[in-house]
Amino acid sequence: MNQKLGRSSMRPEKPVFVLNSASIVGTKEGQGPLGLLFDKVGQDDMFGCRTWEEAESTLQKEAVGMALDKAGLTPEDISFIFAGDLLGQSMATSFGISSYQIPLLGMYGACSTCGESLTVGAMCIAGGFAEKVVCVTSSHFASAEKEFRFPLEYGNQRPLSASWTVTGSGAFVLGGDGKKARAGITGMTVGRIVDFGLKDSMNMGACMAPAAASTLEQHFADFGCGPEEYDKIITGDLGKVGQRVLLDLLSRKGYDISEQHMDCGIEIFDGETQDTHAGGSGCGCSAVTLSAYILKQLQERNWKKVLFMPTGALLSKTSFNEGMSVPGIAHAVVLETV
Amino acid sequence: MNQKLGRSSMRPEKPVFVLNSASIVGTKEGQGPLGLLFDKVGQDDMFGCRTWEEAESTLQKEAVGMALDKAGLTPEDISFIFAGDLLGQSMATSFGISSYQIPLLGMYGACSTCGESLTVGAMCIAGGFAEKVVCVTSSHFASAEKEFRFPLEYGNQRPLSASWTVTGSGAFVLGGDGKKARAGITGMTVGRIVDFGLKDSMNMGACMAPAAASTLEQHFADFGCGPEEYDKIITGDLGKVGQRVLLDLLSRKGYDISEQHMDCGIEIFDGETQDTHAGGSGCGCSAVTLSAYILKQLQERNWKKVLFMPTGALLSKTSFNEGMSVPGIAHAVVLETV
Repeated sequence: MNQKLGRSSMRPEKPVFVLNSASIVGTKEGQGPLGLLFDKVGQDDMFGCRTWEEAESTLQKEAVGMALDKAGLTPEDISFIFAGDLLGQSMATSFGISSYQIPLLGMYGACSTCGESLTVGAMCIAGGFAEKVVCVTSSHFASAEKEFRFPLEYGNQRPLSASWTVTGSGAFVLGGDGKKARAGITGMTVGRIVDFGLKDSMNMGACMAPAAASTLEQHFADFGCGPEEYDKIITGDLGKVGQRVLLDLLSRKGYDISEQHMDCGIEIFDGETQDTHAGGSGCGCSAVTLSAYILKQLQERNWKKVLFMPTGALLSKTSFNEGMSVPGIAHAVVLETV
Repeated sequence: MNQKLGRSSMRPEKPVFVLNSASIVGTKEGQGPLGLLFDKVGQDDMFGCRTWEEAESTLQKEAVGMALDKAGLTPEDISFIFAGDLLGQSMATSFGISSYQIPLLGMYGACSTCGESLTVGAMCIAGGFAEKVVCVTSSHFASAEKEFRFPLEYGNQRPLSASWTVTGSGAFVLGGDGKKARAGITGMTVGRIVDFGLKDSMNMGACMAPAAASTLEQHFADFGCGPEEYDKIITGDLGKVGQRVLLDLLSRKGYDISEQHMDCGIEIFDGETQDTHAGGSGCGCSAVTLSAYILKQLQERNWKKVLFMPTGALLSKTSFNEGMSVPGIAHAVVLETV
């Protein structure tokens, strides 16, 4: 039986499998430490398009196309697609995946959307409502700067706590039959909105870390486990500042995750040479790292069981300009080798 | 057994029940034909807040609070909340429902979000992952004009094809045990993105009608039924122009739904006296009409079975300004008396 577990978690009766996945990134990500692992690296960040938004849409289209190809499937084999991005009204998604004509359920969880879409996708498969679904998310450095911050042409300075939005998209095909699967999803913990009142959109790691701590603490309580249950506990894009805050917050609750913790935003860029400050961020950051690096480690059995927990900062340019805080949210997915 | 049905539909093994619901609207909606049916009507459209965005957040907060009260439940009784709105990065939701501290899965389907959240909420209950969930959506005339169109202070003219965004929020408590339920959800059809290339954001009815026609045709195919299956086939906010387009498109496919069709956007305002042109629109339009009017008809057994199908126009100010088209999407939910 599928079950609700504790306050915020779900456990499917049988694992939901990540049948295959794909990643596409921009040039800067291609030059980073994980560069050789991505399925495709763009020659420039326009990806042959007219605008940055179209470029981001193209990322989603390519990621889904590659994931389907790698799984030996066509769009007709996919029941539903769970998709989202950071742009206002999720425009990268709307113009990215429409040509596949797969029924769409649009998700929004800021940079936690990859975790959210895997959660709802797994729920759909485990609930018996679909045989196969696709989950996809994206972000693009330039479309995100335009959406949330300043025109690139200003060349404004960035504080060291700022993160660099990853240009990339990761797509995942989920299904119930895992003969050749890359990994299995065996649990999900849904996050709550956590608002510590921080207002600095140039320090999103600190804004999101309390949400990561909250979801992680709830996850341990719901599953009756601790950090030692996992080979890695992987946040999406806390970056170096957010990581410190997360470790501090959790140690106050009696959990030491310093050995297990890894952050996709810290892994994806070389902060020393790539001028990315606190690390990478964006919906695409955790998605491409999951597809290219984390699933590879699980498939090669270097890791047996990880907790994948993308974090999202809930702000818009309107909320920021109106002086609102930047609450966070984090959704966690348990991934195991199969 | 829960099942996938045809290309795009789902059928839960047992009905998922709408245990209770609530609606809150602004003054204009309160003066409209359905005015007396809403649970709460604001004295002005600021709802005691500093900004329109905060006002919209307050709508969600009030709607959820009232729905829980009417169902005799507290936030702790609710496993997950499925929520969304029209603002960039769903800010009305983020600041509206955070105080309840219910684990959140954010949805985005433009004005189809009410149908989407009911679909995913029902999937969650029927899949055995929760006992009770809440689905909530909202819109606000002034925050939507600011987000998508012109400053209200311009007093710009509106073509007759334009719709008037409803100020309102509707919240629904879903559960698996329906002793005192208002209605039961017995099927869901997930929409695809349909893009006829229309670019007129002042004629969203025409932009969305092809999506409504697509979802409806697919629904009939998946469930092996026709219009006569339903007492009412209810779209969200096509308005008068969109309704004509929908009836035309469907008649070309051999379906005549003119007897069953009803549109929440046409019902909620009196176009003759309220200067609302084509009708009401927004995530809140279908949500408050469902809560206040449609569920009432089902509960009183005036209608036995209806298809509730909110429609969404997928645009942002960026996509509009970049000359992109306005694709549509529509999600359909089968509601029956219990």
